[in-house]
Amino acid sequence: MAGSLADGTPLAPPPGARAGAWRALEEHRRRIERVRVAELFAGDPGRFERLSFEVAGLLVDLSKHRVTDETLELLTALARAAGVEALRDAMFAGAPINLSEGRAVMHVALRNRSARPMLVDGQDVMPQVRAVLEQMRRFSDAVRAGEWRGFTGERVTDVINIGIGGSHLGPQMAVRALRPYADGPRVRFVSNVDGAAIHDALRDLDPATTLFLIASKTFTTLETMTNARTARAWLVAALGDEAAVARHFVALSTDLEAVSAFGIDPANAFAFWDWVGGRYSLWSAIGLPVALAVGFERFEDLLEGAHAVDEHFRSAPLARNVPVLMGLLNVWYGNFFGAETWAVLPYDESLALLPAYLQQASMESNGKRVTREGEPVTWHTGPIVWGQPGTDGQHAFFQLLHQGTRLVPADFLVAARPQHPLTEHHDILVANFLAQTEALMTGRTPAEARARLAATGAGGATADAERLERLAAAKSFPGDRPTTSIVLPQLTPRALGSLLALYEHAIFTQGAVWDVNSFDQMGVELGKELAAALVDEVRRGVPDEGAHDASTSGLLAAIGRMRGLTGGS
Amino acid sequence: MAGSLADGTPLAPPPGARAGAWRALEEHRRRIERVRVAELFAGDPGRFERLSFEVAGLLVDLSKHRVTDETLELLTALARAAGVEALRDAMFAGAPINLSEGRAVMHVALRNRSARPMLVDGQDVMPQVRAVLEQMRRFSDAVRAGEWRGFTGERVTDVINIGIGGSHLGPQMAVRALRPYADGPRVRFVSNVDGAAIHDALRDLDPATTLFLIASKTFTTLETMTNARTARAWLVAALGDEAAVARHFVALSTDLEAVSAFGIDPANAFAFWDWVGGRYSLWSAIGLPVALAVGFERFEDLLEGAHAVDEHFRSAPLARNVPVLMGLLNVWYGNFFGAETWAVLPYDESLALLPAYLQQASMESNGKRVTREGEPVTWHTGPIVWGQPGTDGQHAFFQLLHQGTRLVPADFLVAARPQHPLTEHHDILVANFLAQTEALMTGRTPAEARARLAATGAGGATADAERLERLAAAKSFPGDRPTTSIVLPQLTPRALGSLLALYEHAIFTQGAVWDVNSFDQMGVELGKELAAALVDEVRRGVPDEGAHDASTSGLLAAIGRMRGLTGGS
Repeated sequence: MAGSLADGTPLAPPPGARAGAWRALEEHRRRIERVRVAELFAGDPGRFERLSFEVAGLLVDLSKHRVTDETLELLTALARAAGVEALRDAMFAGAPINLSEGRAVMHVALRNRSARPMLVDGQDVMPQVRAVLEQMRRFSDAVRAGEWRGFTGERVTDVINIGIGGSHLGPQMAVRALRPYADGPRVRFVSNVDGAAIHDALRDLDPATTLFLIASKTFTTLETMTNARTARAWLVAALGDEAAVARHFVALSTDLEAVSAFGIDPANAFAFWDWVGGRYSLWSAIGLPVALAVGFERFEDLLEGAHAVDEHFRSAPLARNVPVLMGLLNVWYGNFFGAETWAVLPYDESLALLPAYLQQASMESNGKRVTREGEPVTWHTGPIVWGQPGTDGQHAFFQLLHQGTRLVPADFLVAARPQHPLTEHHDILVANFLAQTEALMTGRTPAEARARLAATGAGGATADAERLERLAAAKSFPGDRPTTSIVLPQLTPRALGSLLALYEHAIFTQGAVWDVNSFDQMGVELGKELAAALVDEVRRGVPDEGAHDASTSGLLAAIGRMRGLTGGS
Repeated sequence: MAGSLADGTPLAPPPGARAGAWRALEEHRRRIERVRVAELFAGDPGRFERLSFEVAGLLVDLSKHRVTDETLELLTALARAAGVEALRDAMFAGAPINLSEGRAVMHVALRNRSARPMLVDGQDVMPQVRAVLEQMRRFSDAVRAGEWRGFTGERVTDVINIGIGGSHLGPQMAVRALRPYADGPRVRFVSNVDGAAIHDALRDLDPATTLFLIASKTFTTLETMTNARTARAWLVAALGDEAAVARHFVALSTDLEAVSAFGIDPANAFAFWDWVGGRYSLWSAIGLPVALAVGFERFEDLLEGAHAVDEHFRSAPLARNVPVLMGLLNVWYGNFFGAETWAVLPYDESLALLPAYLQQASMESNGKRVTREGEPVTWHTGPIVWGQPGTDGQHAFFQLLHQGTRLVPADFLVAARPQHPLTEHHDILVANFLAQTEALMTGRTPAEARARLAATGAGGATADAERLERLAAAKSFPGDRPTTSIVLPQLTPRALGSLLALYEHAIFTQGAVWDVNSFDQMGVELGKELAAALVDEVRRGVPDEGAHDASTSGLLAAIGRMRGLTGGS
């Protein structure tokens, strides 16, 4: 149980260059595991100054972590031993660091705002990048200005982005985050193949004023194409002409032939490239819904913000490289304290979808069990990422963060300045943001809880001693729960871009330390293959003889009966 | 690290009656940990029949778990040793099993559709329960029929529920789940104190046709009252008269004095009781938004569905008691395989908020570190609950479920019959639902991956052997990832009620096994106290001298500067 991977492999440090640094960290943890962070603050007036950082205008405070200067030295030594810098430089140089697929990983080129060329296979990709950006600018300007017209001559009031995973989570999150800037058509998102999604999305829309973006690199993604066909049928039925498709559908895709066959004008296909992974594609044509919602200039601000962090990541020394340190802290808790998860807690309604976005960014990148060379790992890799906005979470799951038995490192995020006039709300929000990391760190001893109970007269004169002891135990908090605080001056497009790039590079750093390929996602294939094989059986409500285990067959048959496809109840 | 709680306490079995069963399970795990579930199916044609259950019309399949008949016997022996049955009976008998607060736990009374009395302190609470239900029926009927009129004589078109935590997550989830039944006013929810929430919610509403429900048992919850005051000011400013408040605000609360002081007619206060915990309160007056959205009769169907499962939980023997078995499986993985989390994966857009609802239900109930008697635990308690709807999750985090190093037990849910006409979508959805649990269980060996690569000619003739080996490793899946499948015939109000009650009792069972008080939430208090103390400092932008650690003070001052409250940048 403890001390092994999910498949039973016993834990062991990675071999080779990482081993020494790894063992030094294990040793170091044993020395400091009883040190309280509050004591570190008490004994070191410079701790906050030294362990909080400003990057691209964001304040990132790492001082409430269970680390000393020595911890960070040992962690950066591990990063060095793992070749984090070399892998980073290889990424920026366009080397095929996505080994299993033999591809470069160049989403940083999409937001390269410098004059530097970015080479893939010796070829500067910046001219193509700029050409697609220019195409996005023209198109989004035309739609927003009402120059682009639908088949019946009306302007676009509503946009539906149909995509899933990387073609969905990023733009959906960004459009939600930037709602205060929204001054274009309404933008909705449909991703799930569950028919309830497209059915609900279309219900109150007018086909004459609705524009669909079909986001699928290959134009074959099952969910996306199923939803796209349903949307197409809805439009054609209403407007009465197949020719309407070309005025109401555009594609974010690279397969121009498939795009044409669907009825989309290839001139309205927005390309991206095989060196852009789905979960890193917000910065590409996949970001078109963002440009439509808030305007192309603000989409460019998003790119600018990310680029500023790219520059920091490229050039800052490891010891002051903020995304590197953020990534290393996840390694620290995940590999040396046994933490399985990482919580993302935005104190900002507008960032409600950030946890889901980072869930993909992290778990699809680093939820891996073989090294870049294909050897099974013997150490834990990526954590489970989860979270909800504060203050809501405080009334839901914070109980476990404070008093549960699991160690949950957590990121707290807040914007200093709100984008609404309700100052009193924001004061309370910020107070809660601060209070939670303070409480998680300081805790409350049973003696303090007892004293407080006595002072407040809880239980009154009749309270018996036994009950008071029980209450004091229930009202004590262990503290030393580690948190990162991230403060944005305001949730602008630029700040959002910086924030997302920070996380991307933190995730990159972790993958490099764990020696996994953070850029493929082979783990999604098996389920996809089995699903394709099952569709026909589901349609009939009868499993093929001997095709599945008894559970899968039994469930399939039961669902068939419940749907009335076959006899029985 | 491994083998200890977050606070460093080394793991040890619980003392007393549980110890023997616990050690037997540890021993048993060592014997079966290398057994593959697929082999168990192959050797046992009756496995699916025996390990899948029908309860209240729902099909619950536990056969894809890493269990044998012996495992379940040992787990039910642990439940018996832990006194699960006695605690359950005490709950139904109205005993004060919420020990720290000295309260009964009687949400089952709220949905008691039998003629049985339900006693708290010797008094039958059913007459009060029925009286409030009748009040809810009259009110929701009047609003839905347009008989209830606003201050200017207009009927209600929009309802905003203002509440947080237990006064929010349940009704929000249920209103979302039952959208196909919505035939009343539009219902929105505001919970977060972040001003963006109420600001966005009010933006497009007409005060003359908007009704607010203020849901707070004590009518003092900081977030809820802050939002309520903002809503009140908005309404009074628009309608020009304080007297309008009584026609546009009702309270779900028990403090009639505070309700009156706010301007609400006490006749429009809907009561609940101190034996209803917040996270179990959907079934009480807190469910009023559900009744407004879909009608009181359907709210009653929800209660009926829950009641049917209550009857099962009360009476079925442990070995066939579905919520007990579901709870015990979480114990199995959490305490004997080191799993930290539990994923909830509804293959249903309408259940998008179920994971967040169960997050609270589970984590606030069982994220505890002292026993019911106030002794620190030496075993892990509640898991971290997380999830997103499928098929979306497949394109986001399923990579880690399939190929990560963490064991994530997962619940897969689906409705056999959709509530929309898009049959093809539903076939694909169900196929994916089935394929994922099949894939998670069976996996794919490196040899199988290699054979498949050879068969499909991946890499072509030029592919070198080393690259093929690397690819085969990346494309192999360990399998044996345990899942529960739950099939609802259709997502009706009744089926939803049954589903939620199943989970409530599974969570109850876990808490009983872990010997924690699943009914208090002392862990939320410290942060709340510190936040109250911080508000004034945040308002000024200057920390009080010596009041906090340097991080909390430093962040507060930086935010003050960013907001322009103080000098500097």
